Amino acid sequence: MTDATTTTSTTTTTTTTTPDRRPGGRTARIRTQVLDAVRAELTENGHEGLTVEGVATRAGVHRTTVYRRWRDVGGLLVDVIDAAGEIDWQPPDTGSLRGDLTALNEEIQESLLVRPSFALALMAASFHSEQAAQAQTQLWADRYAQCEILVERAVERGELPSHCTDARSLLVAATAPVYHHLVLQRAAPDPLLPERSAVAAVLAAAAGAFSVD
Amino acid sequence: MTDATTTTSTTTTTTTTTPDRRPGGRTARIRTQVLDAVRAELTENGHEGLTVEGVATRAGVHRTTVYRRWRDVGGLLVDVIDAAGEIDWQPPDTGSLRGDLTALNEEIQESLLVRPSFALALMAASFHSEQAAQAQTQLWADRYAQCEILVERAVERGELPSHCTDARSLLVAATAPVYHHLVLQRAAPDPLLPERSAVAAVLAAAAGAFSVD
Repeated sequence: MTDATTTTSTTTTTTTTTPDRRPGGRTARIRTQVLDAVRAELTENGHEGLTVEGVATRAGVHRTTVYRRWRDVGGLLVDVIDAAGEIDWQPPDTGSLRGDLTALNEEIQESLLVRPSFALALMAASFHSEQAAQAQTQLWADRYAQCEILVERAVERGELPSHCTDARSLLVAATAPVYHHLVLQRAAPDPLLPERSAVAAVLAAAAGAFSVD
Repeated sequence: MTDATTTTSTTTTTTTTTPDRRPGGRTARIRTQVLDAVRAELTENGHEGLTVEGVATRAGVHRTTVYRRWRDVGGLLVDVIDAAGEIDWQPPDTGSLRGDLTALNEEIQESLLVRPSFALALMAASFHSEQAAQAQTQLWADRYAQCEILVERAVERGELPSHCTDARSLLVAATAPVYHHLVLQRAAPDPLLPERSAVAAVLAAAAGAFSVD
């Protein structure tokens, strides 16, 4: 879920938590500077305004360094998406599936409503760059995989029938309406949607909608 | 739902069904030619490649005519979205809510998988043009309003509790996962998703997820 990626968009400091073989080394430092610049350019000017030169200037790094390591705008996009997947994001743990999914949806909603929104900028970019689209598909898959623990915990607590529930389908059903409302329909924010959508998914799951047989 | 808009993207003839004050008149004919050109340019080259000059050339219309009537690319986008809302689309009527929502989702899935996809191109454009985004928000609202009949029929048939169900929420819950899967996650098509997503929404609705109190 790209929601979590926004935590790196507002400050530069959080990106230093990105794991790197040589923390504090020159290579890691340059990556941090360059990816911070990509995030800033992307959120301010969108994908259309993203250039290797602009990123190099903003990062205070020689552009040949950027060309050598990232090659082009596509390479920069892929790495900034990969970096979003590296941050130490944890899915919510509120004690109930309904609470967890609501909290997840609140987080997603917030990431889509903040202006400028890095999450939105990434989604827009993936319409124009096949490389970015693929990296983002992987990021979505990783985030949803990470959230499967919510469903596992719900089964352990007896909130869901013990027969297998397709966790990914349940998670998509719970979260998709929030993205749909804000990213595609671009409708006015609905403060009740995160919880309503979570509740609908929980009720559907309890009725066996996502059971695997 | 932009799904229905794709019916105008593949052929030029279907756009002649667009209602117009003076069918066959010069104004109507020029609009048809210009909007056909916008759809073709948009699906082939995307929003970035859309120019008034390119549209005028393709339409075989003088560019001053296009500037005078549509002003700019934003005006062209708005009108092509408005035109999509004018086509004589009817929501499915299969005899059951599950069947109707599944058919609706199949239609949506098809519109997103066809290449080039006019529906996808419109969504991409709405990230870059505020005017296009607003026109599209209206189109979504109209399409969902048009689909509310599916829920009304289900209540009449006794498939849903007779207390009020928020039709729009139910419809969004049913359709959002299909858009989410193909437009945002850009995951591999899942032939079972249209029905699974429809069934989940029906089960949630039966359990009172979308009840209005």
